[in-house]
Amino acid sequence: MDDRLDRISDSTVRRLSGYLRVLDDLAFDEVDLVSSRAIAARTGVTSAQVRKDLSCFGSFGRRGYGYEVDNLRAEIRAILGLSRRWRVGLVGAGNIGSALFAYKEFPRQGFDVVAVFDNSQDRIGHLLGEVVIEPMTRFFDVCAERRVEIGVIATPARTAQEVAEAMVTAGVRAVLNFAPGKLEVPAHVALRNVNMAVELESLAFVLNQTESRSGARRRGLSAEMER
Amino acid sequence: MDDRLDRISDSTVRRLSGYLRVLDDLAFDEVDLVSSRAIAARTGVTSAQVRKDLSCFGSFGRRGYGYEVDNLRAEIRAILGLSRRWRVGLVGAGNIGSALFAYKEFPRQGFDVVAVFDNSQDRIGHLLGEVVIEPMTRFFDVCAERRVEIGVIATPARTAQEVAEAMVTAGVRAVLNFAPGKLEVPAHVALRNVNMAVELESLAFVLNQTESRSGARRRGLSAEMER
Repeated sequence: MDDRLDRISDSTVRRLSGYLRVLDDLAFDEVDLVSSRAIAARTGVTSAQVRKDLSCFGSFGRRGYGYEVDNLRAEIRAILGLSRRWRVGLVGAGNIGSALFAYKEFPRQGFDVVAVFDNSQDRIGHLLGEVVIEPMTRFFDVCAERRVEIGVIATPARTAQEVAEAMVTAGVRAVLNFAPGKLEVPAHVALRNVNMAVELESLAFVLNQTESRSGARRRGLSAEMER
Repeated sequence: MDDRLDRISDSTVRRLSGYLRVLDDLAFDEVDLVSSRAIAARTGVTSAQVRKDLSCFGSFGRRGYGYEVDNLRAEIRAILGLSRRWRVGLVGAGNIGSALFAYKEFPRQGFDVVAVFDNSQDRIGHLLGEVVIEPMTRFFDVCAERRVEIGVIATPARTAQEVAEAMVTAGVRAVLNFAPGKLEVPAHVALRNVNMAVELESLAFVLNQTESRSGARRRGLSAEMER
């Protein structure tokens, strides 16, 4: 692999992921070329930041011309490790787990859920898609047999830490956690937490702002009428 | 409302939301003070950016002392419009919808799902929590009666655009979309799309990088042995 990638920080990776979303949308809309400014506007960073991030791995748009959408997509996918498929083990087959399992964006981006675990007697032995739900007593065996690389936690908060520890023991080196609260994992294990409330918060901000503005307009209007 | 808020961009709002997550974690761990550098490290921006964002609304940490976690949390919550509660209407009571409904972080941050809609005869009339699932034919009446402010779309992609349009007609000014693909809404309506694959991608990058590194080490070793 390219040595330059060693110097790419986690924050750059997140921005690249954001750029990839924009490029996916543009490709869907059959747009061929995109400027750093347009990518910047859609991802909330400066266009200088976009150019710097992309120059890190040798992709330079042409001045006044921009980046070729398909090329840049392929380059970013390769950088992000999305040019191969990944084997995912899911713990928790409740609502969140079932929703994640059914989430079509995962297989589309190269993530295959190859094992599902749950401790509820109502779920064990049943199918999620074409995968049989296994009890946690089979966790280590199944993870080894199916070579699980990424663990996804979709359990209640109280069992999430225990599940994370089982994943670490099973040799999983990357964990995606949907349970609320903070998990502890060793430094060699990568952990990401998903909090879906963030997007609702940004909507609340917009609503709050427009309401306050119309409030201010009303106040301004009545002040004028009093004059 | 403070006039300065008019100048706060969507990207600043997203960063503030990220800072709030860090502050929530710190408060959970009973940490009293935090530096801009520590907030920056956990959110993937520079500490200069953190200081700039926070100075936008008049919050200055003391040099060599940092920000008071509780104060800063309260300030950011107020800025984001989280010091009041919001009335949410959910369309789609399948796996994703049910998972979202059960997601405890939403009510914790001030979002109450007051109405749930679905078109499946198996679901209409049933309860999700304490909310009766209504048919889409009742959408406009129920949204008006319960004063729905934010719409959440958790339907398959093929019906998402239609649902978004119904929400706009019902006067909803903020839409959170979990369905894949792009939606069109008028400019006065705020739209956020959630793509849960982003976090998996950042894990794939880490795994890809460590694997390539150990591969490089192995190659380095055999090169040495050949000498």
